[in-house]
Amino acid sequence: MELLKGAPVSAAIREWAAEEIKQLQGPVPKLAIIRVGEKPDDMSYERSAVKKMEAFGLRVQTFVFPKDISDEEFKEAFQKINKDPAVTGILLLRPLPEQIKEKEIEAMIDPGKDLDGISPVNIAKVFSGDPSGFAPCTAEAVIEILKANNISIEGKRAAVIGRSMVIGKPLSMLLLKENATVTICHTRTKELPEICRQAEILVAAAGKAGMVEESWVSDGAVVIDVGINVDENGKLCGDVDQASMESRNLLLTPVPGGVGAVTTAVLAKHLIQAARSNVLQ
Amino acid sequence: MELLKGAPVSAAIREWAAEEIKQLQGPVPKLAIIRVGEKPDDMSYERSAVKKMEAFGLRVQTFVFPKDISDEEFKEAFQKINKDPAVTGILLLRPLPEQIKEKEIEAMIDPGKDLDGISPVNIAKVFSGDPSGFAPCTAEAVIEILKANNISIEGKRAAVIGRSMVIGKPLSMLLLKENATVTICHTRTKELPEICRQAEILVAAAGKAGMVEESWVSDGAVVIDVGINVDENGKLCGDVDQASMESRNLLLTPVPGGVGAVTTAVLAKHLIQAARSNVLQ
Repeated sequence: MELLKGAPVSAAIREWAAEEIKQLQGPVPKLAIIRVGEKPDDMSYERSAVKKMEAFGLRVQTFVFPKDISDEEFKEAFQKINKDPAVTGILLLRPLPEQIKEKEIEAMIDPGKDLDGISPVNIAKVFSGDPSGFAPCTAEAVIEILKANNISIEGKRAAVIGRSMVIGKPLSMLLLKENATVTICHTRTKELPEICRQAEILVAAAGKAGMVEESWVSDGAVVIDVGINVDENGKLCGDVDQASMESRNLLLTPVPGGVGAVTTAVLAKHLIQAARSNVLQ
Repeated sequence: MELLKGAPVSAAIREWAAEEIKQLQGPVPKLAIIRVGEKPDDMSYERSAVKKMEAFGLRVQTFVFPKDISDEEFKEAFQKINKDPAVTGILLLRPLPEQIKEKEIEAMIDPGKDLDGISPVNIAKVFSGDPSGFAPCTAEAVIEILKANNISIEGKRAAVIGRSMVIGKPLSMLLLKENATVTICHTRTKELPEICRQAEILVAAAGKAGMVEESWVSDGAVVIDVGINVDENGKLCGDVDQASMESRNLLLTPVPGGVGAVTTAVLAKHLIQAARSNVLQ
């Protein structure tokens, strides 16, 4: 087994970003992170996003709202940030508390600032293969890892375990755009191990610790682990049982240090792309 | 081989429609068909749509524009129809001539009148599995045929040949919503016959006459032929080589008389659904 680490991929995006930032007109792009409540997952992702933006020489401002904020109040505050010309891009930490109508926020967000691809406009673009839309950062991070490692996608059999709107579905579309033959698997899939064994590129995005076992993976496969779980010892782990893969001939992204490390780099990339489109408009 | 004909499926939708129309408040729903130019394919589809609406007791009006109409003129005329409260739903025959910016028309169409699912709002809904969106009629016709014939989709291996925004991609999402495990195949797919043989539900939407041969299909499979091609003798034929399937144990939709016959029935269904949502608003 060889590990496909996220750090070099992130470093390459950072180099690209440094060049891009130099060529941008106007102020340094600014990311607005919007958080409602104090969920540990949100705060942990927020910290790593802030750190990454600063490392990339980008600006970031966090907006925090109490978890019991009303739908109306939140929408008003959200719209203010959304319309603020000083805000280049937005990262909204989700899911939002129940009282807030998330679908309506998705419809409100300016597609040009929607760095994580939650607006119907961007969803439709990703579905139709239009590269002018923002895909969810995690889904795009998978493609970045494959490309940075010169792993050809064209004509490959790919299996994606998971059909969420954050990873499984958009990633399937991104793989399809690169001309993979994609099988979308989920909890109702029968013969999942067999389908995984047929995959040359296997993406685990089920959110189930260690579910992909050694016997599910074929020799020479590229295995991308998008899962972020906590095991029985309180340790972070992926959807792939990494220990069982040690002696196998395959490539695997570790958790932590794999896809997660690239996701915030893609967020930075999207922020720069958003700034560039603003200038072009 | 047993044929899955479209006529009984269309008849069942017609029965449903008759009940629904009785319960609708306000005038009988009206479909606006918009055609630019005189392409035989467009005119043939238009004729069958008009016939179907009339058979279902629905109203239809056709708007025809010259094929050299300017983008600006067409948009103005389109917007007038789009905003007309007397128009319940719209069918826009596509592709439009080059001078018309089709993407902009897709963004303009009222999602509530967009019976063939071309608006980004409906595309995003179909992608995310939200049943309040209109899927393209042909894609939905495939699901109608499966359901009307009591063919269970849940947990089945499905292969879709073709990745267009009219059939392949939206149909993959509709099958996924019914909990099939879906493989999306296309021109760059390697080992296509092998993948087809693994499918319990095989959908051919490649637009290539007779490409699916007898050896590609497993016993007991359900084969849905969405292709509409003209063979060397000028006869209408599908993507499946029907003659070679005769002695096989499988279900197959014929061409003509299969999916096509159901597509316009789904259009009528969408028109009634559009009318119903208008009343609810």
